[in-house]
Amino acid sequence: MAVNRYLEAIFMKPLVQLLAVEASPPSLQDNTGDLDRLKKTLLPLLEQEVLSVPYARTMTVAESFRRADFKGVAVVNDLVTGPELVDFLAEPPKVLAGVALDLGTTHLEATLVDLVSGEILARANRPNSQIVFGADILSRIHFAVKDDGLEQLHRVVIEDVNWLCEELAGDVGLELLDLRALSVSGNTTMVHFFLNLNPYHLCREPYIPLVNAPDPCRATDLSLAIHPAAVVWVLPSVGSYFGGDLISGILASGLDEAEHTSMLIDVGTNAEVVLGNREWLVACAGAAGPALEGGVARMGMRAGPGAIEHVSFDEKSGALHCQTIENEPAVGICGSGIIDLVAALYLGRIIDRRGKFRPEAAGDRLIETSEGTAFVVVPAEHAGGGKPVTLGQIDLDALMRSKAAMYSILTTLVNQVGVGFADIHRIFVAGAFGRHIAPRQAITLGMLPDLPIETYQPVGNSSLDGARRILLERSARNRCRQLVKKITYIELNVNQEFMLRFSGAKFIPHTDHNLFPSVPFFDD
Amino acid sequence: MAVNRYLEAIFMKPLVQLLAVEASPPSLQDNTGDLDRLKKTLLPLLEQEVLSVPYARTMTVAESFRRADFKGVAVVNDLVTGPELVDFLAEPPKVLAGVALDLGTTHLEATLVDLVSGEILARANRPNSQIVFGADILSRIHFAVKDDGLEQLHRVVIEDVNWLCEELAGDVGLELLDLRALSVSGNTTMVHFFLNLNPYHLCREPYIPLVNAPDPCRATDLSLAIHPAAVVWVLPSVGSYFGGDLISGILASGLDEAEHTSMLIDVGTNAEVVLGNREWLVACAGAAGPALEGGVARMGMRAGPGAIEHVSFDEKSGALHCQTIENEPAVGICGSGIIDLVAALYLGRIIDRRGKFRPEAAGDRLIETSEGTAFVVVPAEHAGGGKPVTLGQIDLDALMRSKAAMYSILTTLVNQVGVGFADIHRIFVAGAFGRHIAPRQAITLGMLPDLPIETYQPVGNSSLDGARRILLERSARNRCRQLVKKITYIELNVNQEFMLRFSGAKFIPHTDHNLFPSVPFFDD
Repeated sequence: MAVNRYLEAIFMKPLVQLLAVEASPPSLQDNTGDLDRLKKTLLPLLEQEVLSVPYARTMTVAESFRRADFKGVAVVNDLVTGPELVDFLAEPPKVLAGVALDLGTTHLEATLVDLVSGEILARANRPNSQIVFGADILSRIHFAVKDDGLEQLHRVVIEDVNWLCEELAGDVGLELLDLRALSVSGNTTMVHFFLNLNPYHLCREPYIPLVNAPDPCRATDLSLAIHPAAVVWVLPSVGSYFGGDLISGILASGLDEAEHTSMLIDVGTNAEVVLGNREWLVACAGAAGPALEGGVARMGMRAGPGAIEHVSFDEKSGALHCQTIENEPAVGICGSGIIDLVAALYLGRIIDRRGKFRPEAAGDRLIETSEGTAFVVVPAEHAGGGKPVTLGQIDLDALMRSKAAMYSILTTLVNQVGVGFADIHRIFVAGAFGRHIAPRQAITLGMLPDLPIETYQPVGNSSLDGARRILLERSARNRCRQLVKKITYIELNVNQEFMLRFSGAKFIPHTDHNLFPSVPFFDD
Repeated sequence: MAVNRYLEAIFMKPLVQLLAVEASPPSLQDNTGDLDRLKKTLLPLLEQEVLSVPYARTMTVAESFRRADFKGVAVVNDLVTGPELVDFLAEPPKVLAGVALDLGTTHLEATLVDLVSGEILARANRPNSQIVFGADILSRIHFAVKDDGLEQLHRVVIEDVNWLCEELAGDVGLELLDLRALSVSGNTTMVHFFLNLNPYHLCREPYIPLVNAPDPCRATDLSLAIHPAAVVWVLPSVGSYFGGDLISGILASGLDEAEHTSMLIDVGTNAEVVLGNREWLVACAGAAGPALEGGVARMGMRAGPGAIEHVSFDEKSGALHCQTIENEPAVGICGSGIIDLVAALYLGRIIDRRGKFRPEAAGDRLIETSEGTAFVVVPAEHAGGGKPVTLGQIDLDALMRSKAAMYSILTTLVNQVGVGFADIHRIFVAGAFGRHIAPRQAITLGMLPDLPIETYQPVGNSSLDGARRILLERSARNRCRQLVKKITYIELNVNQEFMLRFSGAKFIPHTDHNLFPSVPFFDD
């Protein structure tokens, strides 16, 4: 490892640092203790007054230092309580590796990061095995408070994380013990499970986490299979419904450092939104309804081969063009596809402003099913699996509620701080929703405000990206801590304004058409 | 517990603090997490930016805080890395208790200290159970490096400490879990055993400890039976032969804070000496020989009933007057008694300047034994146990070597820094030696320099007293850390000057009689 790579690492201040050490050996004239000698050599390099060594590492570090003839590389964790010396190696490791983890309710995603170069060396993901105990967060919380439910949920997620770490390490020819840090970005409940903390009050008014900003711990505390002294750094949350994954998103988007006001939107079952700039930050979260996630509309599905992801309306022919993932025959509709589809149906006047099918326009594509009226998007003969892909009125109603909730959340938030949508410089859209959604169609539905398209910027898995920054930059770790103090959180569950706005937003694009000048208005 | 007692505790900054907390309960308008709420309330009281919570305490602290309705007393450890929140109690405890421990090679002594008032509430002591593995430090080090020797030595001393803690707690009606801190003052090897650290290099040139200044750990790390989050604060050592017990002594004597130069002497098998003032400190340790400890001279014994502790010589009658502990019939001679006795024998001219018996003066009190010539101090008919109490020429020779070593150590040290004995304001004499020895007699023998008697000041068990200060005063903890950096340690094992001085000191009082103007000189 070249000297300048060390310097780079010191400059970025990763969560774990390597420091090259060459100490003079002990003698009768210099009887400094082995560990004291190592600390004394490191303190000026760290520019610190105090360097602590956890009890469990004392003997290993001192003996490794002596065995290496007082020359080699020290491994130092960078904590807010000061640096912590945890290991000594005779030779620099092939890679100083850390893992960034997005701890999702349904899915876990992780990257292996070279803490010196900042490079991502491997990626892995897997479903959250906790699903057997409950598909959603709420049912898992109920499971957790029974008998040893919490312990089970905790164990299962630790096993998942160990599995991911083993995958990642294996991919680049490392051992689990070579993984020296783990940063974790997840929603508040998942973090409680991960840390084995009682989630009882998370879902009970006034919705209080046991802890929002847990202190870093070590891998051994959680029985993680990576290096026992690896720091586990968990991104702080702001409340029960505003987790570290969002804080990660703020880090990744740079919202908190920008001069202009921007917004970050993360949509799953909940919509979580942050608005602000380097001066102030306001956040809220609200149930957006599951319609946007797929999986609830009967034909909805996660993005995968055969999922309809884009739908366009040909004004001339009046036909719908469906584009599927990997161009496979259609088997369902994913979240972004549903928004496209409904926008197209509105522009084609197949649905009206209230989100109801117009039989005079839909013609024989409207069929009656056991669950009510439905629209045939792709007839059986063109669909994969031999069944037609349909959109039921029930699904449409759910989407209307979701889009109304979404817009109301955004307007309530903006209104709370007295800015207008026009004042918003950027709207960062996180996650799968951000990656796949076409803002144009979401605007047509009145789900997102009618702003120039370039205002919207997808930011991918910003939860994972934020976690990577935590591994790499001390400034990101410090920002995190400052961030959570700065955020004003608005509880929408009890917000009157939100309820009023919700009613007005249940039309396409809105009861107040002036709010959406770019969207055609049909007065029927 | 009155408010002013809290204030006093805050002022002294004990190792563990209680802080009264009354937080506003959570609400929809204030969704701060439970633990975050507690920290937020404590930080201004602590005047700190960061307050950490060890992972293992996270759930307990948060849940106790909520159960107590967000009102009660927080337990905070005061560490150099910052405050550490470890518990929350609905009611202040009867006593906030800590234990100060003097971890001796042969004996363990402990006090239970009220961390708020500073009072000593109980005392306990017991022999060091490690004795079955080796009577002295060296044999235990050899035992430690075989198989699981270290583990055995460690376990036994932990059991001893647990036993003492149980005694202390029981004495004042507390539980073991009520003991919230432990400060440990011991020689370097005992500290290695206590912390389960490899002592291999302690007794091998160049005599290097694995660590001189270990970081504080928690009781749970060492399987101590006191409160698992209790801080264990071990006094730092300066080298293999200059341990934390001496640093304790410096703290207790105030040597490091005085304007005038003073000296601290601690005598056991080794003599450990520190010289200095608030500007500088120099230390050394040397084998003084076991003669002064008792137990080696065949008639020597530890101070106990029937031990001769003082001997005076009646110039008129030429008779020796022996005073025993508790005035029991004499059964042996303790350390201070031997010095008195030999001084009396010299003044009575029964021994000459070289420390040899003068048959012409001793008369029939000189007898021949299987181990050579011996002097009958108390004839069989007046002694306890029916055997005469004797002092053999061999014992006398050992004492002569010890006293010569002692004086040489002192002169070498003083000479190294270029001061004279006359520049020394105070000589603190620690431990049993300090408590029992009559400086006048030690001067007569030429063991201690010929200074005004008031220069000498016994300081009792300063090792234990220093440990108590560690529990009570942050300033003492900081002094400790500064102290060890400031001390220049001189290795006497390889010191030429020491060897030369040793020869000159093997006479009573010295070859150079001018050094001891107050001592009668007999030229034969």
